[in-house]
Amino acid sequence: MFGEILREVVEQTDGGLASVLMGFDGIPIETYNTDGVALNVETVGAEYSAVLGQVRQAAEMLELGNAREVAVQAENMTTVIRLLNDEYFVAMAVAPNGNFGKARYQLRLHAPRLLESLT
Amino acid sequence: MFGEILREVVEQTDGGLASVLMGFDGIPIETYNTDGVALNVETVGAEYSAVLGQVRQAAEMLELGNAREVAVQAENMTTVIRLLNDEYFVAMAVAPNGNFGKARYQLRLHAPRLLESLT
Repeated sequence: MFGEILREVVEQTDGGLASVLMGFDGIPIETYNTDGVALNVETVGAEYSAVLGQVRQAAEMLELGNAREVAVQAENMTTVIRLLNDEYFVAMAVAPNGNFGKARYQLRLHAPRLLESLT
Repeated sequence: MFGEILREVVEQTDGGLASVLMGFDGIPIETYNTDGVALNVETVGAEYSAVLGQVRQAAEMLELGNAREVAVQAENMTTVIRLLNDEYFVAMAVAPNGNFGKARYQLRLHAPRLLESLT
């Protein structure tokens, strides 16, 4: 179930490379990689969990309400992260010239289904 | 000079609230707030400097090249951050229903001018 959704969000996004459903502790529940893309999901998880920890702390300190989405654009990859609840998030890696807007849309669209499957 | 650009990016963005040019150490160089918006820039700076520190570490560990942009969407505010060089970034706060795409565009558009003024 998770795997299907993870595949769908990547396949529906031009330049979509991989996706992961992960706990804030950096441990992946399920991942999807397109052919030829070798992302070390555990390293990605550890690094982005630290980023999200800081983001949630910032949102709390600044009284911004819950953080919903974090996007990081780097030279070689864009990462879009959708926070699902207090424990889990879903992230997608997109090529630099990929469709960033579509990636955000796909994650937002499928977040309720993922959340439902989690509980 | 900085002040003019910071004002321009906010005014050109529907829902633009405030902008800041800041060092990664969390110390602001210049800020611009729209009327009635009281953001505690020093707190924002301290919190987002920590986020950006983690983002840069993640980008390095994952060999993603330099981080260019970070966007955080929370319930009450969206923050778009454009990294300018190894020392400085520019950030804009946008209302939740504001124009996120325009905010990104404005920061990207004006980054070279800010960078030029910094050096």
